[in-house]
Amino acid sequence: MGTINGKEFIDRINKLENEIWFDGEKIKGKISEHHAFKGILKAKTSLYDLQNDPALREEMTFFLPDKKEPIGLSYLQPKTKEDLKRRRKMMEHWARITHGMMGRSPDYMNTAVMSFASSSSLLKDRKNCFPENIQSLYERAMKHDLSFTHTFVTPQVNRSQLYLGLSEKPISAKVIERNEKGLIIKGARLLATQGGLTDEVLVISTSRLSLDCNEAFAFFIPSNTKGLKFICRESFVGGDSSYNYPLSSRYEEMDSIVVFDNVLVPWDRVFFYDNVEAADDFLNRSSFHTFAYHQVVNRQIVKTEFLLGVAQLLVEAINVGEYQHIQEKLSEIIIGLETMKALLGKSENDAELDEWECMRPSMIPLQVASNIFPRIYPRFSEIIQLIGASGMVSIPTERDFHSEIRADLEQYLQTEGMNAEDRVKLFRLAWDLTMSSFGTRQTQYERYFFGDPIRLSSSLYKNYPKAQHVEEIIKFLDLKNERTSD
Amino acid sequence: MGTINGKEFIDRINKLENEIWFDGEKIKGKISEHHAFKGILKAKTSLYDLQNDPALREEMTFFLPDKKEPIGLSYLQPKTKEDLKRRRKMMEHWARITHGMMGRSPDYMNTAVMSFASSSSLLKDRKNCFPENIQSLYERAMKHDLSFTHTFVTPQVNRSQLYLGLSEKPISAKVIERNEKGLIIKGARLLATQGGLTDEVLVISTSRLSLDCNEAFAFFIPSNTKGLKFICRESFVGGDSSYNYPLSSRYEEMDSIVVFDNVLVPWDRVFFYDNVEAADDFLNRSSFHTFAYHQVVNRQIVKTEFLLGVAQLLVEAINVGEYQHIQEKLSEIIIGLETMKALLGKSENDAELDEWECMRPSMIPLQVASNIFPRIYPRFSEIIQLIGASGMVSIPTERDFHSEIRADLEQYLQTEGMNAEDRVKLFRLAWDLTMSSFGTRQTQYERYFFGDPIRLSSSLYKNYPKAQHVEEIIKFLDLKNERTSD
Amino acid sequence: MGTINGKEFIDRINKLENEIWFDGEKIKGKISEHHAFKGILKAKTSLYDLQNDPALREEMTFFLPDKKEPIGLSYLQPKTKEDLKRRRKMMEHWARITHGMMGRSPDYMNTAVMSFASSSSLLKDRKNCFPENIQSLYERAMKHDLSFTHTFVTPQVNRSQLYLGLSEKPISAKVIERNEKGLIIKGARLLATQGGLTDEVLVISTSRLSLDCNEAFAFFIPSNTKGLKFICRESFVGGDSSYNYPLSSRYEEMDSIVVFDNVLVPWDRVFFYDNVEAADDFLNRSSFHTFAYHQVVNRQIVKTEFLLGVAQLLVEAINVGEYQHIQEKLSEIIIGLETMKALLGKSENDAELDEWECMRPSMIPLQVASNIFPRIYPRFSEIIQLIGASGMVSIPTERDFHSEIRADLEQYLQTEGMNAEDRVKLFRLAWDLTMSSFGTRQTQYERYFFGDPIRLSSSLYKNYPKAQHVEEIIKFLDLKNERTSD
Amino acid sequence: MGTINGKEFIDRINKLENEIWFDGEKIKGKISEHHAFKGILKAKTSLYDLQNDPALREEMTFFLPDKKEPIGLSYLQPKTKEDLKRRRKMMEHWARITHGMMGRSPDYMNTAVMSFASSSSLLKDRKNCFPENIQSLYERAMKHDLSFTHTFVTPQVNRSQLYLGLSEKPISAKVIERNEKGLIIKGARLLATQGGLTDEVLVISTSRLSLDCNEAFAFFIPSNTKGLKFICRESFVGGDSSYNYPLSSRYEEMDSIVVFDNVLVPWDRVFFYDNVEAADDFLNRSSFHTFAYHQVVNRQIVKTEFLLGVAQLLVEAINVGEYQHIQEKLSEIIIGLETMKALLGKSENDAELDEWECMRPSMIPLQVASNIFPRIYPRFSEIIQLIGASGMVSIPTERDFHSEIRADLEQYLQTEGMNAEDRVKLFRLAWDLTMSSFGTRQTQYERYFFGDPIRLSSSLYKNYPKAQHVEEIIKFLDLKNERTSD
Repeated sequence: MGTINGKEFIDRINKLENEIWFDGEKIKGKISEHHAFKGILKAKTSLYDLQNDPALREEMTFFLPDKKEPIGLSYLQPKTKEDLKRRRKMMEHWARITHGMMGRSPDYMNTAVMSFASSSSLLKDRKNCFPENIQSLYERAMKHDLSFTHTFVTPQVNRSQLYLGLSEKPISAKVIERNEKGLIIKGARLLATQGGLTDEVLVISTSRLSLDCNEAFAFFIPSNTKGLKFICRESFVGGDSSYNYPLSSRYEEMDSIVVFDNVLVPWDRVFFYDNVEAADDFLNRSSFHTFAYHQVVNRQIVKTEFLLGVAQLLVEAINVGEYQHIQEKLSEIIIGLETMKALLGKSENDAELDEWECMRPSMIPLQVASNIFPRIYPRFSEIIQLIGASGMVSIPTERDFHSEIRADLEQYLQTEGMNAEDRVKLFRLAWDLTMSSFGTRQTQYERYFFGDPIRLSSSLYKNYPKAQHVEEIIKFLDLKNERTSD
Repeated sequence: MGTINGKEFIDRINKLENEIWFDGEKIKGKISEHHAFKGILKAKTSLYDLQNDPALREEMTFFLPDKKEPIGLSYLQPKTKEDLKRRRKMMEHWARITHGMMGRSPDYMNTAVMSFASSSSLLKDRKNCFPENIQSLYERAMKHDLSFTHTFVTPQVNRSQLYLGLSEKPISAKVIERNEKGLIIKGARLLATQGGLTDEVLVISTSRLSLDCNEAFAFFIPSNTKGLKFICRESFVGGDSSYNYPLSSRYEEMDSIVVFDNVLVPWDRVFFYDNVEAADDFLNRSSFHTFAYHQVVNRQIVKTEFLLGVAQLLVEAINVGEYQHIQEKLSEIIIGLETMKALLGKSENDAELDEWECMRPSMIPLQVASNIFPRIYPRFSEIIQLIGASGMVSIPTERDFHSEIRADLEQYLQTEGMNAEDRVKLFRLAWDLTMSSFGTRQTQYERYFFGDPIRLSSSLYKNYPKAQHVEEIIKFLDLKNERTSD
Repeated sequence: MGTINGKEFIDRINKLENEIWFDGEKIKGKISEHHAFKGILKAKTSLYDLQNDPALREEMTFFLPDKKEPIGLSYLQPKTKEDLKRRRKMMEHWARITHGMMGRSPDYMNTAVMSFASSSSLLKDRKNCFPENIQSLYERAMKHDLSFTHTFVTPQVNRSQLYLGLSEKPISAKVIERNEKGLIIKGARLLATQGGLTDEVLVISTSRLSLDCNEAFAFFIPSNTKGLKFICRESFVGGDSSYNYPLSSRYEEMDSIVVFDNVLVPWDRVFFYDNVEAADDFLNRSSFHTFAYHQVVNRQIVKTEFLLGVAQLLVEAINVGEYQHIQEKLSEIIIGLETMKALLGKSENDAELDEWECMRPSMIPLQVASNIFPRIYPRFSEIIQLIGASGMVSIPTERDFHSEIRADLEQYLQTEGMNAEDRVKLFRLAWDLTMSSFGTRQTQYERYFFGDPIRLSSSLYKNYPKAQHVEEIIKFLDLKNERTSD
Repeated sequence: MGTINGKEFIDRINKLENEIWFDGEKIKGKISEHHAFKGILKAKTSLYDLQNDPALREEMTFFLPDKKEPIGLSYLQPKTKEDLKRRRKMMEHWARITHGMMGRSPDYMNTAVMSFASSSSLLKDRKNCFPENIQSLYERAMKHDLSFTHTFVTPQVNRSQLYLGLSEKPISAKVIERNEKGLIIKGARLLATQGGLTDEVLVISTSRLSLDCNEAFAFFIPSNTKGLKFICRESFVGGDSSYNYPLSSRYEEMDSIVVFDNVLVPWDRVFFYDNVEAADDFLNRSSFHTFAYHQVVNRQIVKTEFLLGVAQLLVEAINVGEYQHIQEKLSEIIIGLETMKALLGKSENDAELDEWECMRPSMIPLQVASNIFPRIYPRFSEIIQLIGASGMVSIPTERDFHSEIRADLEQYLQTEGMNAEDRVKLFRLAWDLTMSSFGTRQTQYERYFFGDPIRLSSSLYKNYPKAQHVEEIIKFLDLKNERTSD
């Protein structure tokens, strides 16, 4: 066993028959043929196939000692900076064939599983903790090249600071019973991206100031576990035509609400439960955040390159490159792109071995990137709209070009550098990227990927080592006062 | 004759059988029953019916001397500030029932026709000018309560400053022949909003630095004139359900490319032709811009109030009103709204009679508003997305609420202040307003309504009377130098 | 008695011999001849003289019934919108001769006194309240054309939300004793602008969430009251030369810390004390804020016009008016200016009689202006720096122009439209306005004039009537839920 | 010979007796004792002394092959990435002891001289070019540890794009005669920072679109060359007290206008003349920009750390660290700092040997940094003002603390964490850094250090390799059109 290919992936997912609700109906038949999911599933197969591409196999996989089956490289626990760069290269390949559009490409969650395993000792000998289950998950995941999703966001019942979320009937998913077989979970989580489209689901505590003991758990279960339902939002696939909807026809991932209807989680799948402190520790001290950020920032860089390409091609198509304000807008994208790249590089250069001998990227530069991207991505999307201007709403369809008005379109929608059909194709891409419901969901997704931007900013402030800079001032001014920073 | 009602309007439009192309097909049958147009046409009927509502009839109509048929008030030539306020009141009524979402509500173009007529003397005794045709249009328009659209934007072949647009085969619509019957027009114009959904079309020169003599014309023709084609973009109607698509199912106006395939414009419908100077004058010295801005700013205020309502209801629904950053965001909307209202008020207070005895609002405040709105509207749209956060993509559909998973949705999507069905309804509205392809087109529309924002800014700078303020400095510093400002 | 002239004012201030500390020394001799104060005092005399200018006397003064002495118009209690406009005209005259640079021009505090008197009934029959003292202050103020300052800001010991400011020895000024003669005050207030340069000082509670009863007072006392000290900050007068320092040599107002060293406030000068509720009411329900804002916004408009003049003259001097980004920057100033003017106009148009028959401007537009100005003023200051660029630091002095290198300066600092001496004069003005320590203090002053910008924003949000707009949405969506806004 | 110490530097500068004009007078006597220059000269001595500090000597100097005199490390031509890091370390030491406040610390110009020498072959065998003179300058500079300034900015006569600057009498410095001794220069350059305070001056062509042949030169001459005059602007030294003016009393560098009054430049000091193409090449293809940017970005990082220290200490002094908006502001500084550091690191990591075997940092990341810093520095200055709020203008002086009102100040200006004297010291630092005329000049300096921000942005856009990203789109969309990017 080891890496699978696209076909194997599809067959496995189809076989699961997960309970997925879409527009009032439970999906029946092959999920890979459903209009809302076939595009994204096909995109995923292209990722799995890439692992088997002879030209890239070496860069996409690694071998465990004494094993001869190749393993997907996103599972590699890095021990050196060289390993980190290998990981990055692999992730870049995957990101590039989906242009950074697939938020939950398999490497994201594989990386999470790898990081959990790397830090599993953190849970050793603690109450209600089962580090061995993490280890066995990690091994099974590598062996079968499993795919995962996870779900963080709790229902938006009341966002007030004072709201404690105590209600009689569970809303947020929680443990309602512990028995000899395992935990019984009831309640919901919002927003599992690709919910129902993966082999398994990881469910883990979110960091909340006052975490309820019943919500202090982490486990993984197969997507087709009894009582587990995925309720989809409206689909943002515009249609099948890749001319009309070059992105949504391929990369619409779907988000779903995950309902736990008295779901039984067997003990051998529980990482920890009923342990608020361990839950908090596991999120904050394991290498999870660091490696997840490392994967995400890498993907976001590839996506920004895609945006830069679109923006520049628009500029060339309508020949506006000479305008100072256009140059300024493109420079903004370039500055954002280079900044993200520099921060990613710094995180790798400053990487250090953690207490469990794992080579962990430096967190601060990644945290800075996570503060920057949610603000620049929406701006870059806006820049593309500003360049496209009225062209963004002059978008006839593929069928128009195959009708008797084709000649009119060819004459009136051409530009000096581009024929009408290509030009409309390009503008439809720009529209699908920034203005279709697929595009705006991408914007919202990047805006909130790392969580609430305001909390990200506060958290950076709190974590940042400031004492040394404050000392410089105290020394310069020769102040008498005694204080402690950081 | 005089004001019509909704039914009369629909019947007349259906009868026209305009040549409209949609997704590769020429539309046949009643346009009012086509899925892409039925919503907006129904919304328009509600406007016409309002004119006949006994409670509002007085505020919606006026009477010509010696006539007893009421005329739509948007046709009123204001002679006093009181008239201006009456006009505003009328426009507010219309804007309010469509929440400011209908860019080309009939009063917009009616106002244009009124302003042309008010300033028609400008064309008197000038070469190739026919002010009498403007006058007769105005009278016919009042008599039959005609509806219009117009089309400004020329094809985006090449936006370079140096591009002259000379090509053998016309791209931008131009006169290719003048004969005893009239002008022959060939070429295209982009972006007629509601193109094909009105009785007639106004075609008028745009202000371009070096206007080609063959493009220096203005005329109006019936929408069903031979050779006139409307090629629609993709429709942004999400679907019929007003639960799912509260805005796009009602207010998607459609934009179309207007093709002139050797269209004959009879002489009695030409305002002017082959006269670059008159063309320029007519756009810049007539009261057209002033009255058009007056209508638009009024509509934008109503729309901003709608946005404020949505934003505040979201805040209440998830109870985030206590957060300082939320208060700041809402304040931003309030500041924008009050600023627009203050500027509109100033334009009316400072109104003056123009040379043709028409009470013209003051232009500077309206120009300032036209510089402000294209920047604040996209920001307000963003604010709504920021408040909604993850809730903006947790949007199940109407059918979900009528299926067996209703109970799950009710439990998990409720908020303290709102049941799940209402809450999803509200979030779907917020989504349709800012993130659906309908919503983003609204944003793009407001961003470019008055034209290129950069040119708007330069134009304000150039028009603004600065000399007096410069003099203050020269006097204060007792400078010797002689200079001339403005 | 009634209006005084400049000389009378100066004589009276000199005679007071207030206790003013400057750079480690107590000021002796005539304050009007001290290098740090002579400029501002001279500027104030020009204001008083204007009241006596025959050409303007009518616009600057009014008469009380049955009196024949003219009274300064800032004391007029407006009963009609016409009165409001008269007040505005008067304030504009004063603001214009000091270019909006004098924050505490006499009309500011006179207006406060007028508004207190107008609303004094608010204190009627309340515990520890003496509305009659307000009335008698008002009458004495009119009779003698008194000048005032006030002081709001409490010491910055600890800005934490939880800090209660309880310390053994008073820091913030408070009542430490009540006896038959009056109140004994000990402690300090920060930042009395023009502290020591006015006849009297008003001391009034600031609105703090949990106001200490001992700080719930309002009174006025002569500036030379025993125990009252004014401790000045460093002076920002650059020097005597009005060539080098056109603004600071004239308009540097000085801010001082006000120390109450067991100051006795006689009973007949107390408005209220030991009454937290009355203190809160008096600030929030009296017309004080409204009229103060009305004066301030008016002054800020005049100041913005001055900035626009400087910016435009710089543009002309170095001939950069053709650049799009320069046009955009100037437009920003124009937009800010026109917005402020429109809001001021709206506040007057929407004025209404309050419960005590005083014609009160509408508060919302003024509140909006108070949210806008602290953000645009620093930006406009920055715009001037951006236009001036390197020219802002190429500033030789007046003496350079009177030395043998004059010829070099004349040759190398000339511009096409301006000789070198004038050009340097202009750039020195731009520098003094935005980059000298005088200029930056102006920026900080406008930034915080109305208080903490964050609280201003929250307060606008809370006060704004939002319910009607929320209702529109509820009706549009036909929501079932019941809620209350505002 | 080789590195000098502070005393040697001062003695040499005093001996030069450069012609410096200050406030209408020619400076006589020791420049190191003049109130406007003593601070900065003392700061410079501390830099030279550091080279001789045994603890740092190794990090501050290097040895030429076969020589035993240590040479200042800023003269080292890097051949490896290790050399680059050594250079950075050295520059950091110098920047740190002046907190990044000295724009023209000796390493800046030494680096320029080094880079010129490294790229001198560029001028080989070209008309009117003397690469050997560059080489000999480089050697003399190392031997004597010379100090330099240079001057770029041409007079601001008319900034219009169309202005050619042709006038009869030279304004911008140009060659007016070529004779057997050398070139005769007449005219002026604006803004030599530290003009008159260095051994020599480099004068070099600026890049202008259409460079006049008479301005296409580069040379260096001693500061005391006959006919060379430095005309100072007003001094921004606030006074001698380092309590009152912690920065301006130490780091005010002075800017001066440089006048060339028929200055003879001997042939052996000319790099090139009368060769527009070589002039352009020398600026754009030599390693000058790259190494200069490398030095500057390094200094700006140190300066940003200083600002962060000040901001954080203010936050602690008045205890506002708990506010979300304060945390956000501090995060902004942190993000800026880390971004600059990441870009600097990337430029070193991506360094490559240039055609003359010099290890050149990668330019793009430095160019990105040069686009970022001019925008963030003014913002960080503003953030400090926003944190300090009213405290920024409550600034009594050192003498106040030594007078009888000390007790009042101690009581009323204390904060919980800081005594009054220290607190005022800190706020005075914050003021001197951001609001004194010294501080605002720092802001303007950083804003324009790399030139016009708008040109920086355009230039980044033009230089950036975009083709690859555009190709990705063309391939993705399978476009037919042929085009060329970059």
